[in-house]
Amino acid sequence: MIKVAVIGATGYAGAELVRILAGHPEASLVLITSRQYAGKPFDEIYPAMAGVVDLKCILFDADTVSETADFVFTALPHKVAMGVVPGLLERGAKVIDLSADFRFKDPAIYEQWYQPHESPSLLETATYGLPEINLELIQKSSLIGNPGCYPTSTILPLAPFMKENLIDLDSIIVDSKSGASGAGRSLSLTTHFCEVHEGFRAYKVAAHRHTPEMEEVLSNLAGRNVTITFTPHLVPMSRGMLTTIYADLSGDFSDDVVHDQLVSYYKDKPFVRVLASGRVPDTLHVRGTNYCDIGFQIDKRANRLILISVIDNLVKGASGQAVQNMNIMAGLPETAGLSACPFPV
Amino acid sequence: MIKVAVIGATGYAGAELVRILAGHPEASLVLITSRQYAGKPFDEIYPAMAGVVDLKCILFDADTVSETADFVFTALPHKVAMGVVPGLLERGAKVIDLSADFRFKDPAIYEQWYQPHESPSLLETATYGLPEINLELIQKSSLIGNPGCYPTSTILPLAPFMKENLIDLDSIIVDSKSGASGAGRSLSLTTHFCEVHEGFRAYKVAAHRHTPEMEEVLSNLAGRNVTITFTPHLVPMSRGMLTTIYADLSGDFSDDVVHDQLVSYYKDKPFVRVLASGRVPDTLHVRGTNYCDIGFQIDKRANRLILISVIDNLVKGASGQAVQNMNIMAGLPETAGLSACPFPV
Amino acid sequence: MIKVAVIGATGYAGAELVRILAGHPEASLVLITSRQYAGKPFDEIYPAMAGVVDLKCILFDADTVSETADFVFTALPHKVAMGVVPGLLERGAKVIDLSADFRFKDPAIYEQWYQPHESPSLLETATYGLPEINLELIQKSSLIGNPGCYPTSTILPLAPFMKENLIDLDSIIVDSKSGASGAGRSLSLTTHFCEVHEGFRAYKVAAHRHTPEMEEVLSNLAGRNVTITFTPHLVPMSRGMLTTIYADLSGDFSDDVVHDQLVSYYKDKPFVRVLASGRVPDTLHVRGTNYCDIGFQIDKRANRLILISVIDNLVKGASGQAVQNMNIMAGLPETAGLSACPFPV
Amino acid sequence: MIKVAVIGATGYAGAELVRILAGHPEASLVLITSRQYAGKPFDEIYPAMAGVVDLKCILFDADTVSETADFVFTALPHKVAMGVVPGLLERGAKVIDLSADFRFKDPAIYEQWYQPHESPSLLETATYGLPEINLELIQKSSLIGNPGCYPTSTILPLAPFMKENLIDLDSIIVDSKSGASGAGRSLSLTTHFCEVHEGFRAYKVAAHRHTPEMEEVLSNLAGRNVTITFTPHLVPMSRGMLTTIYADLSGDFSDDVVHDQLVSYYKDKPFVRVLASGRVPDTLHVRGTNYCDIGFQIDKRANRLILISVIDNLVKGASGQAVQNMNIMAGLPETAGLSACPFPV
Repeated sequence: MIKVAVIGATGYAGAELVRILAGHPEASLVLITSRQYAGKPFDEIYPAMAGVVDLKCILFDADTVSETADFVFTALPHKVAMGVVPGLLERGAKVIDLSADFRFKDPAIYEQWYQPHESPSLLETATYGLPEINLELIQKSSLIGNPGCYPTSTILPLAPFMKENLIDLDSIIVDSKSGASGAGRSLSLTTHFCEVHEGFRAYKVAAHRHTPEMEEVLSNLAGRNVTITFTPHLVPMSRGMLTTIYADLSGDFSDDVVHDQLVSYYKDKPFVRVLASGRVPDTLHVRGTNYCDIGFQIDKRANRLILISVIDNLVKGASGQAVQNMNIMAGLPETAGLSACPFPV
Repeated sequence: MIKVAVIGATGYAGAELVRILAGHPEASLVLITSRQYAGKPFDEIYPAMAGVVDLKCILFDADTVSETADFVFTALPHKVAMGVVPGLLERGAKVIDLSADFRFKDPAIYEQWYQPHESPSLLETATYGLPEINLELIQKSSLIGNPGCYPTSTILPLAPFMKENLIDLDSIIVDSKSGASGAGRSLSLTTHFCEVHEGFRAYKVAAHRHTPEMEEVLSNLAGRNVTITFTPHLVPMSRGMLTTIYADLSGDFSDDVVHDQLVSYYKDKPFVRVLASGRVPDTLHVRGTNYCDIGFQIDKRANRLILISVIDNLVKGASGQAVQNMNIMAGLPETAGLSACPFPV
Repeated sequence: MIKVAVIGATGYAGAELVRILAGHPEASLVLITSRQYAGKPFDEIYPAMAGVVDLKCILFDADTVSETADFVFTALPHKVAMGVVPGLLERGAKVIDLSADFRFKDPAIYEQWYQPHESPSLLETATYGLPEINLELIQKSSLIGNPGCYPTSTILPLAPFMKENLIDLDSIIVDSKSGASGAGRSLSLTTHFCEVHEGFRAYKVAAHRHTPEMEEVLSNLAGRNVTITFTPHLVPMSRGMLTTIYADLSGDFSDDVVHDQLVSYYKDKPFVRVLASGRVPDTLHVRGTNYCDIGFQIDKRANRLILISVIDNLVKGASGQAVQNMNIMAGLPETAGLSACPFPV
Repeated sequence: MIKVAVIGATGYAGAELVRILAGHPEASLVLITSRQYAGKPFDEIYPAMAGVVDLKCILFDADTVSETADFVFTALPHKVAMGVVPGLLERGAKVIDLSADFRFKDPAIYEQWYQPHESPSLLETATYGLPEINLELIQKSSLIGNPGCYPTSTILPLAPFMKENLIDLDSIIVDSKSGASGAGRSLSLTTHFCEVHEGFRAYKVAAHRHTPEMEEVLSNLAGRNVTITFTPHLVPMSRGMLTTIYADLSGDFSDDVVHDQLVSYYKDKPFVRVLASGRVPDTLHVRGTNYCDIGFQIDKRANRLILISVIDNLVKGASGQAVQNMNIMAGLPETAGLSACPFPV
């Protein structure tokens, strides 16, 4: 059994880590921290977990954490994470960071969209933790920048097309729709029940900070600069993210060409399910799981490719992917602790 | 007071017509029909309207209807409508048809996407009932093809840009999201509560029959052929539609240019609200009203225009627009019966 | 036209007052206040109302308010209201207060459940504004304590049975279910979207402050002391309240006896709809309206009466009822501004 | 590994059985049947389960089923079940039936509320499968009548009080609230999305067929006849059931007496969580799990006990409980396959 700690365990991503790790056959959750709830039993904050999780939240202390745990998940706000991670690494812990602080290779891009970076040198050694494209790097890494939810849902369907001259890389438009849990547990009028429940809206149109994250990864895959247009929307549901991607086809390709490209790219990947031609994904089908389902349609009239992906934003879009990264780093089966059967409804 | 009838009053669009007409200061609802519920009081089918609507559903009969009512709304399935409308027109009624049967100028397009048309000659005299672009034609018309919900939400934001060389007309992508009432009251697994409530999905991707309707109208506005890519999605809410439209800008235009174009195009239109730059529309803000709110954002990095519109699919997307058409045909104020204040939540 | 002001216009009850008054044929909304949003246009806080409500929020000042308006609605938190109302009354305004501060006759009960009362003498002159039972008092009153939402939904179905020896007055159990808008617009984890959306819970079980309000009114109606058990629950929806009431029958009464009692009690009341035997009310049927629908069932096996009522908690449960009170005080038709047709869905 | 079959696998209860069994460490799902979808792969009907469940639906045949499986779950409509179960038992299978057909001891009660019973003699040998009260009988049984969802949520909180003279057994009132999945996958206007989503209603008031099931079990526990009043309501959510129970206390008991009684009654029961005094259960906390959480409040003013329970109607209310029964019958740990950690949201 490997020993793991969750730093920032009482936000939604942290609590979802706790949930997944509580059922992990090869990992033992030994320590959880929370600034706001230090001293309280976890099941007082999340009564759902009474009888399942028997830990108290403590205040973060780098020595205690690194002495107790082999793997540390940091589920902290941007900027807070970069203040905590270097100390953990120095003490020998392996770290999977769920913030944006270690996702970028180029500190200039990070600083343009976020803030000054306090440990830019770590960006070189950090690995972008999208296992379907970075498996070998993750195996050897001590620091993972765990991908954002929108980037995960966008890069996975696009990755197979970044090098094959199947699509025009300057025509990519990404229209995403997310459930409200992506906004976290912090109170805000934008996630107040009555402001969300019977409405639908876009936000941060062409201005969301996940845009440069997608672009950096897609550019690396393409071997050239890729600029995209990205619009996120808020769906009145708790979990789930659907991303619709539009790109001009470079030629007159058939459904089979597109389908084969997706299937062959993901043939050994346990968490990507490529749907049969003509089937459309539904966030309901991946709820609570680490799956990313991908479907597509060719609009023959306009000769455009439409890719559609769905994930659970808290699982494959955050905590499930983080555990997948830990599994890979620890030499465990990639699916350990992540193979629960999806719910029918 | 003008006298009006609703044919097919017990579907959602029909019932919404009944609701609006019940509060109309210049129109009197005198007759409603329903095949399924003939003989039953309307408030037995819609108990919400007890004490407000005191009519019984009867079976449709062209003579009775045309003798009783000056204006007839036909809220019937496609194909059924075209069997009923000609008889009403012959008997002197003015007809506003909410099906697709009289929305197209070109019968070939209709027949390609729907079925053989039984009264193609009527297509010449029918007017596409989008008052913001066809006001004068509607004033003189006896037969209105009331627009579909997706076309209304798509054409209104795009119309101001179809002639001005501001956007590349070959680059238009329309990504729409609709509440479940758009699918009507007929039972289907796709609108069964548990299949919708906590999921989000696309459907009829690049294959929805509202596509040619949008294209015909946009082509007429542009004076050239316009082909678009259109993807509808189902939102787990009852009412509301948000449409996100992407188009490449033809030059390096500022926010002001786009905003001015929208404002000047709609300056006298009571139901279009152009939002200030940087504000995003929300379906919650138009729920139960005949408004179409339009916002926009320029993605300067990709030089694309993003237009976003919201409507209530049952009001501006169907029955409210139908009443707006009636008002115009009857010489009433365009807003008569349609000026209820929106709900805060 | 009478002139009205809304004090505390940006909470949900205040905004709902603004909505209703914006469409009122005999009242003109001339002034709105907000501490938090003073100086801002109302439609910046509620963009839904752009083009409909053209007022700026100002800071409260008793002189300005009473010079400008004939009727003042105070939609303020408990305790804050009692600091504001006396000054308005002194300056000659008629006041309808939506807080609990003027709902009780007995200051001791208020102080036991709330806090010390600063103007206990006003409790004598204030009228409990439930028009269906206090019509004549309201007509002559200058200060209305507008009822709480739970009390409205509980007292209306019970009132016809408080004097007739039909039920055992010591056996009354009230099980209520409310949408989230009842908790207002203030941020709280208990109304954070993801904490509400897919769950259902009770709260303040047998400890809610609406309990003594119900008991005082019911006791007055009965002419004896009435103690009830009351449990509120939170429904994952925005608007609507359903109350299920249980009481032992005093004899072997038929459905007709119960139905007749309800119908005769409410025969001239425009906003109470008594359903036919065997029909059950649904909050969907009263959404956005000032109706209270009442149904019942006799459990013959246990000889218990089950009464079920539904209201929209923001309308009949708050702002609609407040306007109904204003209409009565001003000698207007009771239904003025409140007769919008309910939505089919 | 024991071999199991699910008869009627494509309804919600059947599909939930498939989900749970797919993750069961000691059971292997070897056969599923469906009349409607015979010949189709299960993941075509439930795409969520692609890659997880690799079975085709077949038509039911008693010989095939009993030769293939040791344990058979019948998830069929009432009446259909009783035509199938006897043949399975004769062929040596152990059967857990999720319909009402084998829940009653007294065929007269079944026939009064349902229909004539074709195998009344089996009612003697069948065991009511509520493990918390019938553990030893279940261990020895070959036929389980798996409890209804409402009875499970009602009997569990009441059982500890049926013999101790703590409550007046003639005063029990049960007010239940259920998510829509309890109504199953069959299409109906009552579970059409727009008819449910923003409304709340009661149904089958004092007339639901789960009433006699509760009464028979409670009467057996009490050793005397118990009649209750039962009102079910429909909550606009997919999964979850909350039951609020009212009963007059027989004396002046403290919180500790009630709490101790609950805790001691359920001290060895892995799926019942008794909450600390003052805490209220939430369906969100048991979603997707086999837990029943129980809380309570004493209304000291009226001297009534209020018990509140929550379950997931598809798990502890149906399929999870069925698997719990199988575990007990097969001598497996009671929690096998049922110990997934609850979701935080």
